[in-house]
Amino acid sequence: MELQCPIPISDYPVVTLAHGGGGRLSQMLIERMFIPTFSNAALEVLHDGAILELNGTRLAFSTDSFTVSPLFFPGGDIGSLAVHGTVNDLAMCGARPLALSAGFIVEEGLPMEDLWCIILSMQRAAAKVGVPIVTGDTKVVERGKGDGLFINTTGLGVVLPGVHIAPQRAAPGDVILINGAIAEHGIAVMSRREGLAFETELVSDSAPLVDLVMRVLEVGGDQVHVLRDPTRGGVASALNEIAAKAQVGIRLDEERIPVGDAVRGACEILGLDPLYVANEGKCIAIVAPEVADRVLEAMRVHPQGAQATRIGEVVGEHPGKVFMRSRIGGLRVVDMLSGEQLPRIC
Amino acid sequence: MELQCPIPISDYPVVTLAHGGGGRLSQMLIERMFIPTFSNAALEVLHDGAILELNGTRLAFSTDSFTVSPLFFPGGDIGSLAVHGTVNDLAMCGARPLALSAGFIVEEGLPMEDLWCIILSMQRAAAKVGVPIVTGDTKVVERGKGDGLFINTTGLGVVLPGVHIAPQRAAPGDVILINGAIAEHGIAVMSRREGLAFETELVSDSAPLVDLVMRVLEVGGDQVHVLRDPTRGGVASALNEIAAKAQVGIRLDEERIPVGDAVRGACEILGLDPLYVANEGKCIAIVAPEVADRVLEAMRVHPQGAQATRIGEVVGEHPGKVFMRSRIGGLRVVDMLSGEQLPRIC
Repeated sequence: MELQCPIPISDYPVVTLAHGGGGRLSQMLIERMFIPTFSNAALEVLHDGAILELNGTRLAFSTDSFTVSPLFFPGGDIGSLAVHGTVNDLAMCGARPLALSAGFIVEEGLPMEDLWCIILSMQRAAAKVGVPIVTGDTKVVERGKGDGLFINTTGLGVVLPGVHIAPQRAAPGDVILINGAIAEHGIAVMSRREGLAFETELVSDSAPLVDLVMRVLEVGGDQVHVLRDPTRGGVASALNEIAAKAQVGIRLDEERIPVGDAVRGACEILGLDPLYVANEGKCIAIVAPEVADRVLEAMRVHPQGAQATRIGEVVGEHPGKVFMRSRIGGLRVVDMLSGEQLPRIC
Repeated sequence: MELQCPIPISDYPVVTLAHGGGGRLSQMLIERMFIPTFSNAALEVLHDGAILELNGTRLAFSTDSFTVSPLFFPGGDIGSLAVHGTVNDLAMCGARPLALSAGFIVEEGLPMEDLWCIILSMQRAAAKVGVPIVTGDTKVVERGKGDGLFINTTGLGVVLPGVHIAPQRAAPGDVILINGAIAEHGIAVMSRREGLAFETELVSDSAPLVDLVMRVLEVGGDQVHVLRDPTRGGVASALNEIAAKAQVGIRLDEERIPVGDAVRGACEILGLDPLYVANEGKCIAIVAPEVADRVLEAMRVHPQGAQATRIGEVVGEHPGKVFMRSRIGGLRVVDMLSGEQLPRIC
């Protein structure tokens, strides 16, 4: 184990917001500091959760802390988000959720009614997925040492037999599918936070993806190679990570990427690229071409996949890179963000 | 499900520090708000973690968020504490730890070197117990919206066959054992936080209890009825919870409760009762009288139990109450704290 700090202190003397943004600096922290230090087989395979073998059963284990600001936003709140985020991470491992834990860090002074609304919202979200919240913990910090409420949810699930999801399985020829329009969560939170009023209300897509993913896996089986929910850092960051891990190229078609009109308009006003904006109810599925049509059809008949579409494919060229064919035919690289576009979005 | 806030808003319009202190208000939050809302069988049995059955294996699942201030204290830091805290909670379920998750909420501006030291410390602590940290998450919040670093660790373990630990199993006649002197963690953190200098350095007892507990269970088997690490709220709060859940009385012998001289002195200066001060390397074992001597002997030959001793017994009188026979022979009730004695101790 290297004992010197693996992040160059001269460049980064302190942790910055971008270290938590899901882009290049987040990746640096994870890849240089966490992975080599905590080094173990399970840690290195997946991004969304670890897979543990226990008496022939494969368990998925995933953790996420939620620091979204504000606590309540159109389409959800930190409670429902904390449940959806973690059950979705389990689903992206090809697992059906078994149980959740909930850890609360409350700032002194949080209105008791707000806490109560959030607890109820968590329970409704968990009940909808049919997953119990079985253990918890509450800490309270002094005023000014937190920000209302942070929630950690950690989930345990059972991976479906015969399913093997891993970013490394993305292979040239594979088709890239998504279950609907992007950037809705980030834009909804941002518009509430900034007090922006748009003609159409922008609503987060925060939702559980377990049922949709179970349908995808029923239809696609082991030919579903990668599943990923493009949360922090958006579709661009998720695909960049997959391209890097699998050492493949990923080609997107700009005109096929679904973006709602209201979200597109808000992105233009806010100066944001929807490809980098967080989603909380979207699933990218990278599947073998033989099953692509059937998986797409299964998504489309599901309530959460009506707008499902094929957005690109995995290619052999430009390994490690994501690029996009624009509406007018040019190709541009879709890079990972180095800074932080939208802090505290989840 | 009741939709009105179950905590009287007129009494408690906002969350206070005492709601996280491990005393009466913490208990009110848990028992009125969390348990009825998240209602499920696993949630209601244990305090330190939930037990889940999976294909005949009993899994223990436990979560804890750590908000200790300062991040570094004599005898440990938030990283080692976060590992010890959660592996100990698993051990208190009678389980051997299988894997940990780690969720970091970093305040912007945390020195990168501090984060690195804490990561290394976590890894050393985890390696010592032989438990891998298999999955993680990092969020960064703006300056002034956190306090350096908060860590959530959630643990998964496998309950030993033939072992059934539950507070409800405490029965009249049972013997109450502890593996050593109390109040060391809370006093060490407090003295560092307040910048107090004592002649003897006060060092936290933060340590993994897994190995000690495995020895206790080997020797005592199913006659080990309850295990509990008396963290927040100390020995008094832990025993009050057990007395309430099992509806038994608990009688302590003041002169048998081990308290080091330095800790006793510091408690006097700080105006604290050591019975209410947090421990992070202590285990209370409530065992059937037939195995008490053997369990005590097993503790004493273990490096972490040299000062193990019998501190009291479970009785039929005064169900739900803890009382103590003082040095001069009187009996006094050892109640649960209603306020918060030592915030941010773990």
